[in-house]
Order: sequence, then structure tokens, then C-alpha cells
Amino acid sequence: MRRGRLYGLGLGPGDPELVTLKALRLLRQAPVVAYPATMQGDSFARGIVAAWLDRGQHEIALRFPMRPGPVPAAIYREAAGRIAAALGTGQDVAYLCQGDPLFYGSFAGILDCLAGDYAVEIVPGVSAPMACAAAAGVPLTRRNEALTVVPATLPDDELARRIAGADAAAVVKLGRHFAKLRRVLAALDRLDGALYIERASLPNQGVAPLAEIDPASVPYFATALIPGRNGRV
Amino acid sequence: MRRGRLYGLGLGPGDPELVTLKALRLLRQAPVVAYPATMQGDSFARGIVAAWLDRGQHEIALRFPMRPGPVPAAIYREAAGRIAAALGTGQDVAYLCQGDPLFYGSFAGILDCLAGDYAVEIVPGVSAPMACAAAAGVPLTRRNEALTVVPATLPDDELARRIAGADAAAVVKLGRHFAKLRRVLAALDRLDGALYIERASLPNQGVAPLAEIDPASVPYFATALIPGRNGRV
Repeated sequence: MRRGRLYGLGLGPGDPELVTLKALRLLRQAPVVAYPATMQGDSFARGIVAAWLDRGQHEIALRFPMRPGPVPAAIYREAAGRIAAALGTGQDVAYLCQGDPLFYGSFAGILDCLAGDYAVEIVPGVSAPMACAAAAGVPLTRRNEALTVVPATLPDDELARRIAGADAAAVVKLGRHFAKLRRVLAALDRLDGALYIERASLPNQGVAPLAEIDPASVPYFATALIPGRNGRV
Repeated sequence: MRRGRLYGLGLGPGDPELVTLKALRLLRQAPVVAYPATMQGDSFARGIVAAWLDRGQHEIALRFPMRPGPVPAAIYREAAGRIAAALGTGQDVAYLCQGDPLFYGSFAGILDCLAGDYAVEIVPGVSAPMACAAAAGVPLTRRNEALTVVPATLPDDELARRIAGADAAAVVKLGRHFAKLRRVLAALDRLDGALYIERASLPNQGVAPLAEIDPASVPYFATALIPGRNGRV
């Protein structure tokens, strides 16, 4: 029997209209849809495309712990096992990813477990740094500037070292790390001009100077942009 | 009279199916479509959406010199002037961008000239590093890795410094800078595992180990990926 094919679908930052034509086509064709979810069963990725899901599609909600630190390999292996069971019966599986499938997120771990045994196709998606730049109306990179994307989860010194060496920087996964980032930016004299963006592309999107933000209010999916210093036209 | 609105539309890496629903909707609604083109009039961005353009849409081809170095400010100002003339008559203008509008490319210069005077909305698009990772089937970033995006146009020493400090790196705009990048990667002992991707998402897409590539064959829109060193699951 033919084995199913695994699709990793990048669904973009949250606005359903930022889904690509290709991801939507493959989503609609897939008999099985899998996605990461919290232990409570909520799934941001599923929410992006909820309006297009069909009751006939079998859904596999994969619960990942949201606690800090790397997800244990056993959790990826169990999730991959549930997907493999569907692939083994010849059904294609669409794995839903917010943003891009290979830029952070759980799909890399699923791919590690399954790429050797099943055909895989990956559809790239619109990523958070680009969605945040669009929300703020500020260029990420001009001409020969480099862009550094850094997770705020890094320790103070490493965060500082990476931002100090960057032209333009995007700091992702802010959440409870916001106060640390703010401290690091102030020490590097890069607080001025730094922007804070939350829920980019969603109706309740927010953009503000980073210096004005209350650390207690910052969700995990918030991003800081530190624009490059190349001049305007 | 109402002034027109400027839309910066990210159209993704080249496959028309990687256009977002939002970019396609706004493209179809716009009475005027502007795009960067070579001095010969060719436009990669226009080519992505050529099948959806309507004869009724007025097209503004903006010729940008493809020679090395920054585009002179006078060229941006002239291009912006042509767009402003359409906006001034109340017509909306869709500016077509390959990839993402704010991640390299000409739209930043257009925005500099027009953002103060006209309403602007920017639609983010799928970017080259993500499209290349999807083509290669290799994660760009895992867990707390940082990603550095570097243009190959930088001088040897700066290119080396930025790649040496990176976890994962994507080197864009390879073209005639490929031999320099290869030399830099070999000196840093990061040639092993480095991947070369050209024309990501197009029918003639190519993926190969970077060490195997003939420098004479490398187009400008080729990318190198240097994966991070975080382990697999």
C-alpha cells in the first residue's frame, strides 16, 4: 500500500489572509490534519485555519508542554508515532505550523523522527520578524545590512553579545523575558528606536516604542525589532 | 479629493502559489500596479503574479540599475514621484515585491519617500531563507538558536566575522560573491554541512552541498544555508 505524504504547512503569523494559496490547497486536500496544542488542547496554528477545516478531516492534536526548556525527545517521538500511524494507512497528513515550519516551532522535531521513512513536502510561511516589520511599517534590513534573529530565552550575556554585534535585530519569544531584554538594550544604548510588536497581523495587534511597555503585560508571542542604522533614502 | 493608498505587497520567493490570500486580493483590487524592473524592463516580482494581472490595470515599471552598490537616492525619488502622481489622483497603487517588502529590496526606499504623505499598508511575504530551508528540508533554527542573515556582498572580513559568531546563518545575494563566501566558510571550517539553494520554489529549483557548486554558475538570487549545531531530536 502507498504510504501517505507528510506536509509541513507554514500558516503565517495569525491573520488567516496571510495563508498562502499553496498551504490552503494542501490543507483542504489532506484527509488528516495534525497540529501542536497546549495541554488544555488550544492550538494557535489550528485557529488560523479553523474556518477552512472540514468535519470529514481527522484531527490529531499533539499536546506539547509549554514549560521552559527543550521539549523532551520522548514527546516528539510519541507525536511522530501518532502521525506515522496515519501515514502508514496511506493517508496524507498536513502538519499545521504558525509562521514558518522550519523557523523555530515543533515541526523540526517531527521531521527528525519521520523524514527518513516518509515523503515530506514543506510549504514555507510568512514569519514573525517580517510580519512585525509590516505592522510597524519599518524596514527590517536595507542594502548590505545583516539581520540577527535572537530568542529572548537566551541568558543576559549571550543576548547582549548577539545584539551588540547585530546591524538589525529581531528578538522573538519575549513573554517573561521582556524585562531582561529591556535591561540588555538599555545597557547597549539601543533602547531608543527599539520597537515592541504583539499579535502582529491580528485584529488586536499592538505596536509601541519598547521603552513604554509594561513587562507584566507581555505575551510569549511578542517580538522586539531593533532597526539597523543604515540611513534612509 | 481622496488620496490613493500605497500597498507594499510581499509576493514570496517565486512560486505563484506562495502568494498570500491577502496579497492576491489587494493586487486584484488595485487600479495601478508598480514594480521594480531591470533597465531592460524585466521584473521578477511582476512575473510571479503575471497570470492575475488585468489589462485594465495601469502598470508602472520602475527601472533600477542592477550595478553593485547602493541605488542612488535620485532614482528612488524619481520612482516615488511616478507612484505619487497616481496616488495624487486618488488611485490606490500596489507595489509588487518579491519575497517580503521590508526584507532587502527596493520598497524601503519608496517608503522613505512616500510614508509621510500617503497612507501605506504593508503585506508581509514568504522570505528567501524560509523558502530555501523548505526546499532543502532542513530546519533553519531550533529551540534557542539565533539566526543570522548576511548579504554575501559584504567584504571578506565582515562576512567571516558575522558567520563565525552565528549559530545558524543564511547568506543571501550570492551571485558573483560565491567564491568569496566559499573561501570564508572553508577558513571557518563551516563548509561541511553548508547548503546551496538556487531558485527556491521555482520549477528549476536546485539544492546541493555548497562545496560542490561551480562559482561560475551562481545566479544573484541564490542562498547559502549554514545550519545551526543544535542536535536533532
